[in-house]
Amino acid sequence: MNIDHLALRQAVADGFAAQTDWLAKLVSFDTTRGNEGPCQDWLAGEYAARGWEVDRYTIDEVAIEGLPGYSMVVDVDYSKAVQVVATHRVEEPAGKSLILQGHIDVVPTGAPELWSRDPFKAEIIDGWMHGRGAADMKCGVSAMVFALDALRRLGLEPASTVHVETVSEEECTGNGALSTLVRGYRADAALIPESMGHKIIRAELGSVWFRLRILGQPGHVLASAAPGAHAILAAGDYIAALQELTAEINAEARSHPWFGQIESPVKFNPGKIRGGDWLGSVPSWCELECRLSVLPGHTLPDVRARVTAAVAACAERLGTAMPVLTWIGFQADGHVFEPGTAAEATLARVHESILGGVLEPVSLTATSDTRFYDLYYGIPALCYGGNARGMHAPSEAVDLASLRQTTEVIARFVADWCGVRRIG
Amino acid sequence: MNIDHLALRQAVADGFAAQTDWLAKLVSFDTTRGNEGPCQDWLAGEYAARGWEVDRYTIDEVAIEGLPGYSMVVDVDYSKAVQVVATHRVEEPAGKSLILQGHIDVVPTGAPELWSRDPFKAEIIDGWMHGRGAADMKCGVSAMVFALDALRRLGLEPASTVHVETVSEEECTGNGALSTLVRGYRADAALIPESMGHKIIRAELGSVWFRLRILGQPGHVLASAAPGAHAILAAGDYIAALQELTAEINAEARSHPWFGQIESPVKFNPGKIRGGDWLGSVPSWCELECRLSVLPGHTLPDVRARVTAAVAACAERLGTAMPVLTWIGFQADGHVFEPGTAAEATLARVHESILGGVLEPVSLTATSDTRFYDLYYGIPALCYGGNARGMHAPSEAVDLASLRQTTEVIARFVADWCGVRRIG
Repeated sequence: MNIDHLALRQAVADGFAAQTDWLAKLVSFDTTRGNEGPCQDWLAGEYAARGWEVDRYTIDEVAIEGLPGYSMVVDVDYSKAVQVVATHRVEEPAGKSLILQGHIDVVPTGAPELWSRDPFKAEIIDGWMHGRGAADMKCGVSAMVFALDALRRLGLEPASTVHVETVSEEECTGNGALSTLVRGYRADAALIPESMGHKIIRAELGSVWFRLRILGQPGHVLASAAPGAHAILAAGDYIAALQELTAEINAEARSHPWFGQIESPVKFNPGKIRGGDWLGSVPSWCELECRLSVLPGHTLPDVRARVTAAVAACAERLGTAMPVLTWIGFQADGHVFEPGTAAEATLARVHESILGGVLEPVSLTATSDTRFYDLYYGIPALCYGGNARGMHAPSEAVDLASLRQTTEVIARFVADWCGVRRIG
Repeated sequence: MNIDHLALRQAVADGFAAQTDWLAKLVSFDTTRGNEGPCQDWLAGEYAARGWEVDRYTIDEVAIEGLPGYSMVVDVDYSKAVQVVATHRVEEPAGKSLILQGHIDVVPTGAPELWSRDPFKAEIIDGWMHGRGAADMKCGVSAMVFALDALRRLGLEPASTVHVETVSEEECTGNGALSTLVRGYRADAALIPESMGHKIIRAELGSVWFRLRILGQPGHVLASAAPGAHAILAAGDYIAALQELTAEINAEARSHPWFGQIESPVKFNPGKIRGGDWLGSVPSWCELECRLSVLPGHTLPDVRARVTAAVAACAERLGTAMPVLTWIGFQADGHVFEPGTAAEATLARVHESILGGVLEPVSLTATSDTRFYDLYYGIPALCYGGNARGMHAPSEAVDLASLRQTTEVIARFVADWCGVRRIG
């Protein structure tokens, strides 16, 4: 059945005050890694109240180890990693099925001095909602849920199966998304409403996370330490070696079909460091944790081998033992969403109708959950959402007007892709 | 009265098996900072058993704040910082009084992978006792105590007051030594038997400890961080700036009367680092803790001002805010023990008689507790002890034959300096 576009826009608008409050509630949960449970339980209740089947489980209940896309589990207890899949099921589906997926994990807030407000208290300033996770990507989760609410407000529901999935681990492994697929949830397309500025991801980088445990040759600081003996200074040498490898990979990226136009798309981030115990001793250890992007077309084993070789060569130059190198998070392939799917055509049509311009593709220099759907399970995955700023920064905020449009886009996309029918 | 030198040597030798066991017991206490209590309580019992008056107290009971030589108290609870002063008191002193002082605090063991043995289980290999603190400086503490035991074995005791002091905080502030002086313990000389290879310290460097809290401009790693925005990489810039300052000071040191002959005597140690929380975010903070030596003749306010200026200039180059700079431990003056004291003459005579060569002076590129006695309280301070190796390293060990000689030197020094008389 056809739907009344203006009525649907109005239904989204009518629900938007409630949606904004709901999003503020979602932001109020500290969902940093290991703490997602209370938020997911609240969401499970929200889903149940909408009449959806709710599957609440933890990742440790699902055998994901070693599967394609799997990332090593380090420093975390997966018996606390709560995932929720809510399902709107119909007995005789009339349209295509859909997964709407969003992650509710957020990155740590970092130095408190840099925050002028409580990170977990949403605040609206000039039409932008601020708060940790407001943009990445609790706003997207609100759009998924309130898009379906808008249809319901018109007395409509999807005419085929829709899974509404809220996962964790998107910011470090992707194992939450993987677990939903291993648990059996499939559909004809997946839509992940990350804040993409109303563009669609055409290609994205993967990434690998690793840790170097560097050992020194400790002693009293009264003598000068030999090169490599000072574990913290040696960490600086390993950083320089990995920056050199990154420059080498970025030189290769210049001819990449999807990333060639971006200046140095591959990023190396020595993002965490811990070393030394005592200022009167030459530090005996330093742990350096790093993230390196992975270009589509570069395989993970190859990237890992290059990292290993760069570290080994640096150790040899320093005349010290090879640091213990461990893979501690993301082992994520880069990938390309080839144009031409029916799902993208549907989204493009809806986007153009609502926002008035063509749907532009973007090559993302980050990693999202999309790879699990398209790369490992053959499900066309659309990553599309509204305007945001300050991702991972204290300035993180989402443009509420844009969020309302995203919600409308999703509602129309559901109507077109799944079809709708009268409730009851 | 004169003593029989050969008999005293024999008395030291007769007690040496017990001394070795006693030292092994001392090594078995983990006396890293904050954990000194049980060791000090055991020592207090040992002192009491010898008939000495025992004053066991904690640093928080003594008003040391702001006094000359005082170092800032950071990250530690001084209600647990147990100090022990044991006093051999005579009613009518016939000689000069003496402080025998040793520290029982040890530096942390560092990376466990670098230890082939339990750091706190003494092990004797080829005449060397291994273990954390065996050389720095529990061996010296055993020499102080067993030197007096050797005299007692001959039926003798010092003819004047001797304070046997075991302090903590030598490895980070010196506030333990300071507290003994503020509490009123004074003498005509002080002897600290650090393992000096049978030399005497003529000059030593001071040191300052400080912490930089560096803030970044966090964000998602998908974009390249601006210079200074990445707090961990910025730490590398501050390290380089402080290395430059150190080189500048070492150039000045070339004309120093006591350190001019030593290549780069001033050491800069970025000994501890903690930074970042998440590999997908540009790190928002990094804490870098450092130690810098202080030349005799350079004032602490001047050194602190130079450190501050170097950090500020680096921050300006990076275009970022000045890191928060805190002074977190040692604020120790360098100093020179001018030759010519009666105490040194006595020690030199005893040393030559027992070891057969002249007593050589040494300029120490480290910091000991001696400054409190000579610099702030006008008490001639002798820092003299035997052979050791691997200070602050897993290879730390003390040469037991050398320790026996040190014990004999101290016994003879006590006899000459304080005089002796028959017990009872």
